[in-house]
Amino acid sequence: MAKYARIASTGKPKVVIIGGGFAGLELVKSLRNAEVQVILIDKQNYHTFQPLMYQVATSGIEADSIVHPFRKVFESQKNFYFRMAEVQCIDTQQRLVETSIGLIRYDYLVIATGATTNYFGDAQMEKNAIAMKSIDDAISLRNTILDNFERALQLDDEEQLNSLMDYVIVGGGATGVELAGALTELRKHVFPKDYPELDFKSMDIHLIQSGGELLKGMSPEASKKSLQFLEEMGVKIWLNRRVKSYDGYTVTLDNGETLITRTLIWAAGVTGNPVKGLRPESILKGNRLKVDVYNRVEGYDNIFAIGDVAAMITPENPQGHPMLAQPAIQQGKLLGKNLVNLHHGKPLTPFVYKDQGAMATIGRNKAVADLKLFKKDIRSQGFFAWLIWMFIHLISIVGFRNRLVVMTNWFWNYFTYDSGNRLIVGKKQENIPITETITHKTVI
Amino acid sequence: MAKYARIASTGKPKVVIIGGGFAGLELVKSLRNAEVQVILIDKQNYHTFQPLMYQVATSGIEADSIVHPFRKVFESQKNFYFRMAEVQCIDTQQRLVETSIGLIRYDYLVIATGATTNYFGDAQMEKNAIAMKSIDDAISLRNTILDNFERALQLDDEEQLNSLMDYVIVGGGATGVELAGALTELRKHVFPKDYPELDFKSMDIHLIQSGGELLKGMSPEASKKSLQFLEEMGVKIWLNRRVKSYDGYTVTLDNGETLITRTLIWAAGVTGNPVKGLRPESILKGNRLKVDVYNRVEGYDNIFAIGDVAAMITPENPQGHPMLAQPAIQQGKLLGKNLVNLHHGKPLTPFVYKDQGAMATIGRNKAVADLKLFKKDIRSQGFFAWLIWMFIHLISIVGFRNRLVVMTNWFWNYFTYDSGNRLIVGKKQENIPITETITHKTVI
Repeated sequence: MAKYARIASTGKPKVVIIGGGFAGLELVKSLRNAEVQVILIDKQNYHTFQPLMYQVATSGIEADSIVHPFRKVFESQKNFYFRMAEVQCIDTQQRLVETSIGLIRYDYLVIATGATTNYFGDAQMEKNAIAMKSIDDAISLRNTILDNFERALQLDDEEQLNSLMDYVIVGGGATGVELAGALTELRKHVFPKDYPELDFKSMDIHLIQSGGELLKGMSPEASKKSLQFLEEMGVKIWLNRRVKSYDGYTVTLDNGETLITRTLIWAAGVTGNPVKGLRPESILKGNRLKVDVYNRVEGYDNIFAIGDVAAMITPENPQGHPMLAQPAIQQGKLLGKNLVNLHHGKPLTPFVYKDQGAMATIGRNKAVADLKLFKKDIRSQGFFAWLIWMFIHLISIVGFRNRLVVMTNWFWNYFTYDSGNRLIVGKKQENIPITETITHKTVI
Repeated sequence: MAKYARIASTGKPKVVIIGGGFAGLELVKSLRNAEVQVILIDKQNYHTFQPLMYQVATSGIEADSIVHPFRKVFESQKNFYFRMAEVQCIDTQQRLVETSIGLIRYDYLVIATGATTNYFGDAQMEKNAIAMKSIDDAISLRNTILDNFERALQLDDEEQLNSLMDYVIVGGGATGVELAGALTELRKHVFPKDYPELDFKSMDIHLIQSGGELLKGMSPEASKKSLQFLEEMGVKIWLNRRVKSYDGYTVTLDNGETLITRTLIWAAGVTGNPVKGLRPESILKGNRLKVDVYNRVEGYDNIFAIGDVAAMITPENPQGHPMLAQPAIQQGKLLGKNLVNLHHGKPLTPFVYKDQGAMATIGRNKAVADLKLFKKDIRSQGFFAWLIWMFIHLISIVGFRNRLVVMTNWFWNYFTYDSGNRLIVGKKQENIPITETITHKTVI
């Protein structure tokens, strides 16, 4: 017989939220004064500020400064209950969530499980590539990069050396562009000082994009300028190319060309990450849940989905809203109000997405920003965009302490041309061992 | 046939240093202008500032801020070469170090491998206890503590609850005392806010010390006052008690009494960590290497040992110097000069330990310090000692950026009564699963 998880009932309606990303976090906040019991379930005990994950991966900031424990964020919110657990399935008949710590009953269920890396069914790619969807991924990438150079010191075979020193990034969206830029900065300012024995002229950074432009979804100016910035910084950009296969060593492109690398970063797509137990008709292409304008999952009265996992099909957004922080935050905020209204039988407010623009940083003093201020489009590329990017990200990080630490790091890195966190702590990717055929010449 | 590791020879005598703790780090610095090739081997790519590890374990500071990559520390030192490798053995005949990346030739070898946790042969203890000798240990302890509370939420059986909420620290030296103090502060200021559903009145922190006093080796005032401070803070101190066994759940003391805990922290002793391949006669009790007053390992011309792994038996120090940072730093500094003199056939300077005192922090505004200033003994307990402790530790951390980050954290923690890094990122100890006999009552 299944057990119940132990959560003291407050007698109030139970709003169970699965996932504490941007959407879930905002929903909890929005329910602060509501007469409900808010139960947040997440497999981690912290919220991750995903937009800065690429900086953790490239030794720019501490992992700890972009994650924030839920219990601390909501310390003073009396109706908040947190449970660290994996969700296995939901039982919509019995209104139960089956988790690793037992069953959790809900009156209203909100699915805010976000998105996961989409390998488009390529199991070999999934095995060999590094993704960028979690703090563990970011730390693993950082460790792998540093470890590669330590290992490269032992090689003189050119191809083997390149396999450790070259990087292939697949996907020209914000993550791919930002990673490529950050790696280039490290190649220029940091690595040659750390590894004077290696020749960084031979370190190649490839960025592969299936379409004809980078930062698809942003303005043509942003796409063009980001391409120009990256090319000036020496990134090898492959437009209109797809990766056909990657065995952990050889990357084969769709036109038959090959690249050699032991480190391929997969930033080429995400797919919704819905929970099990929902009727299949509600799951659209891309694994997102079909929701109405109130974020209610089609076919259910009391089940909602917000953020990346939700697809609200409207004439303006025939594919649903972009899978970004802003729609998630706005949906979370509104749903909090709507849940209270729903419970009191009051009319609900339909969701209208307020597009505030998008931005991406490319390197030192270089970013691209498409902003919407007072209903005007402001497009900026270069230093001003970079300042805006820093400002917006800094104020968006949860927790004053984290902001302080990130700011300290940024100032430090900027003025010293140095990034401090070049540590191999924790796991790294086990890439293919160096083959024994390599000549270890006696040079000592 | 064994291969050689690839390190371009500079034609200068090769000083190979195994281990980058306090002693090794100081030796590298001391050789900055020497006409030698300095080769540091360490299995990590960073130096760890061990005295603050307990603060990482208790969520006070980021792990990243007390570790510093060797390559960055010695970025501008031209004669410095670093290799990340595990040392397997040394061949004193051929003057070779056998490592995971191949053979490394030396002209002078310095063993600075420090100490490792001493379980006194108790394999069961080694398996079930958490040690505090590395950053991985500290992170693992932090994760375990936080995870324990998450799991405790699911229990109502009193013994099972206690097994997760109670902590047993074995060893009343600086590590044990500092950890006990920090845990008590968390119990008072932080955990009750994070876990309002748990009753922290029932959280016990036990400190077990085999002798009759805490902080053995410090002044009687320091020992007495630290005991008083900890007792006032509610730590349960067991003097003159030893742990007979620990199966991961039940701690049995030498008088037959038992304590229940799933988290036992073993800070009861360390033992030298010498490399393989040395003649057994040079290895003393406690696994330390017998060295003369120049830190030369007995029986060898060109092999030295410094820091915790070295035992320099003198009339003043019949057991060798205390296994602390200060002797290690001083020996590293002097050996740098002596190696240069040795190579030039000049006379060597014998090592004389300058005892600068010792200190330990117990809690907020509470520390004990025995200082030696201008040959005078200054003993302080309380607020003033605490200020000195902070000042000395802050200026001792390697790297200005790290100092900034640690200081930011300390100020933050002090004024907010909060410690920010309550994250479960990375591995945790797999303690014994909660048994199925526990009643999971339906309370929701």
